[in-house]
Amino acid sequence: MELPKNLNIPESEKPRLVIIGGGFAGITLVKELHKNDFQIVVIDRNNYHTFQPLLYQVATGGLEPDAIAYPLRKYVKQFGQLYFRLADVESVQPEKNLIITSEGILNYDFLVIATGAKTNYFGNKMLEQFTMGMKTIPEALNLRSLILQNLEKAIVTKDPTERQALMNFVIVGGGPTGVELAGALAELKKFVFKEEYHDLKMEDMQVFLVEGSGRLLGGMSEKSALQTKSFLQKLGVQLMLNCKINDYDGKLVHIEQNNPIPSNNVIWAAGVMGAPFAGLEATQAKPSARLLVDAFNRVQDHENIFAIGDVALMKGDTKYPKGHPMVAPVAIQQAKNLSKNLLRISTQKQLMAFAYRDQGSMATIGRNKAVVDMPGFHFKGFLAWLVWLFVHLMSIVGFKNRLATLLQWFSNYVNFNSALRLIIRPFQPQKPKIDG
Amino acid sequence: MELPKNLNIPESEKPRLVIIGGGFAGITLVKELHKNDFQIVVIDRNNYHTFQPLLYQVATGGLEPDAIAYPLRKYVKQFGQLYFRLADVESVQPEKNLIITSEGILNYDFLVIATGAKTNYFGNKMLEQFTMGMKTIPEALNLRSLILQNLEKAIVTKDPTERQALMNFVIVGGGPTGVELAGALAELKKFVFKEEYHDLKMEDMQVFLVEGSGRLLGGMSEKSALQTKSFLQKLGVQLMLNCKINDYDGKLVHIEQNNPIPSNNVIWAAGVMGAPFAGLEATQAKPSARLLVDAFNRVQDHENIFAIGDVALMKGDTKYPKGHPMVAPVAIQQAKNLSKNLLRISTQKQLMAFAYRDQGSMATIGRNKAVVDMPGFHFKGFLAWLVWLFVHLMSIVGFKNRLATLLQWFSNYVNFNSALRLIIRPFQPQKPKIDG
Repeated sequence: MELPKNLNIPESEKPRLVIIGGGFAGITLVKELHKNDFQIVVIDRNNYHTFQPLLYQVATGGLEPDAIAYPLRKYVKQFGQLYFRLADVESVQPEKNLIITSEGILNYDFLVIATGAKTNYFGNKMLEQFTMGMKTIPEALNLRSLILQNLEKAIVTKDPTERQALMNFVIVGGGPTGVELAGALAELKKFVFKEEYHDLKMEDMQVFLVEGSGRLLGGMSEKSALQTKSFLQKLGVQLMLNCKINDYDGKLVHIEQNNPIPSNNVIWAAGVMGAPFAGLEATQAKPSARLLVDAFNRVQDHENIFAIGDVALMKGDTKYPKGHPMVAPVAIQQAKNLSKNLLRISTQKQLMAFAYRDQGSMATIGRNKAVVDMPGFHFKGFLAWLVWLFVHLMSIVGFKNRLATLLQWFSNYVNFNSALRLIIRPFQPQKPKIDG
Repeated sequence: MELPKNLNIPESEKPRLVIIGGGFAGITLVKELHKNDFQIVVIDRNNYHTFQPLLYQVATGGLEPDAIAYPLRKYVKQFGQLYFRLADVESVQPEKNLIITSEGILNYDFLVIATGAKTNYFGNKMLEQFTMGMKTIPEALNLRSLILQNLEKAIVTKDPTERQALMNFVIVGGGPTGVELAGALAELKKFVFKEEYHDLKMEDMQVFLVEGSGRLLGGMSEKSALQTKSFLQKLGVQLMLNCKINDYDGKLVHIEQNNPIPSNNVIWAAGVMGAPFAGLEATQAKPSARLLVDAFNRVQDHENIFAIGDVALMKGDTKYPKGHPMVAPVAIQQAKNLSKNLLRISTQKQLMAFAYRDQGSMATIGRNKAVVDMPGFHFKGFLAWLVWLFVHLMSIVGFKNRLATLLQWFSNYVNFNSALRLIIRPFQPQKPKIDG
């Protein structure tokens, strides 16, 4: 099959702006620029935008995927005759102003790379093969299936060692994802599993949270970290700080200077890295694989290629010498700033450097339990939890998604309970490879 | 790994009643019998009950899976210390009162087979390989992904023949599933796709409904059939009555005495058959593979094995000489009758023969369009559509599911639109095999 020219996008008098990635950065840019003189093309390998901060709730059955995903074609449509293409971008050819995708090639006048981040296994192939990631909806659904399948297996096994491995949940990484997942699992045990698995000794279920540094939530205040520690301990989570995972073969988690933990459920939330693609290797920072950009989010050495959000590494900001945190507010603010700069380019005005306004950060640990850091002060508990709920609810794209989320949360809160325990697609764990 | 005895279900003084299958028949039996002196064990290969009549809405994005699925463990729990096991039943050994499952063996005192029906391809391996089934939630989700993926592909292809094949939807079988799916697809084209795929010539999308007999909805009245035909024609569905599919190779649908239709989307809703398993071959009717039962739903030649619902074939009813229709009301009524008979067996009373009370049947074709046959009269249109909505809503298991369904329907009705167009797991169509 011959590939079509420009993915069947018609020629236009307007300059063509190609945005790769429909995450927070990509969709913000579309919204800001749609009224202006660009032919906008959005490309994503999925046909939906994912609200990543709530993926852990999909994994633990608190929300269904439709609550946190929004169809990109529907999003784009509301702004008029914009173009969406479902495709995997394989490489960029900057000298020809061209990208190569799974569905054909596409010329651009301006290219914005907003491909986000992917899980970082730091080169360990075993961890990549045997642990569960948490960066996409299919991964979250796989994790949900695995948790439920392994409890069903625990009921029917004769072997007590095997049963314990099926009931040990090891979460690696004490950032927001790890903390929120550990809290949600501990609450599932307490409020749901104990009742529903009446013929399984639920006290045997253990949730371990393993963190390499000496504290949780490295990006937040010391107060929040300590409060989170106390919340998690009250929920019965086994905290292992200053612990480094050496390896995992699908059965035993090897931890430096500790006895190995038998577990069939290891979740890797210990690192992310940029997700760029071939053709821009020269501008990739080592080892995070993020694209080096200047203060205007322009990719190093390229006049008309920009990178925003998690995939971009801007080093000039003195407050963030190692680059900005890989979080949604940075992506959104960079998209807004870039939208202004793209207009300034067309009117030949001087570009405006990006400056990050930190609006605070937060994490939730469970029912009525959250921590919030605002510039200058910190609070915790029920109020923090309400603020967390409200901010997340309002950040979800689409009124219908917001309503669905609110209703599911309300029902979960009232019933101490989430009803979404469906193993729609059973997950097939990989078998350990046998050498020789 | 050694398999556990009796799937780790403790010994009991009560007789053990094993129910295979958590469909309408299985869950009704649980509800009717839970107060009585049986140790009840429910086995299913899924951990959820599926409300099958609405699967076509999952396939066409009108509902999410959580609206029509209910966790079996949660269902069983509400009735007390009953047992649920997630397992695939492989065979029955009636002489030993034993079943063999993927997770171990299990003894029974009474066995009830309620495994329902599976798709019948009438022995055609090509149809089985290349058409899409519609009997399970994963199948419905695969179909949803395929529809959306193929429209995305239609946008980027250069080849007009390939584009038409991607936009031709062929539904085989004019029963309720085929009719409802054809109507839903035609409405998606009209209300949703035309707007969202502004750069695709949506008039080219065609929905074909192919039926072997001379009329639609064979189980309903002639009036309903004619009305349905007229509804579908108004929606632009191409009806092909008296047409028999000979073969399909993934690209061309070969229809007797017709030109082949190029299509990448063929949905098989033309037949179902029983879904029994090894060990009961002698009692399987040919060719439907249903288990032959007497008037008490007792499987031929077995004192303590019963079959209810789609999998059972009861021939004695003079009104239904070929057996009862394979629909939910039969399954539910047989389960209720069997529950009484199981109690009569323990008190050594005479058993009561099953008698089916036909409460009518209905089908929906689209927005405000449905047909209802009640014993003695027929009605159609908006009122029929409201009745259809109400009856289906009330039949869904679980208050939360009912609420979710109602809200999703309300939102779809108001917006002429279903927002659930997410390709969460891309479907990989099989490649045609090359001979030689």
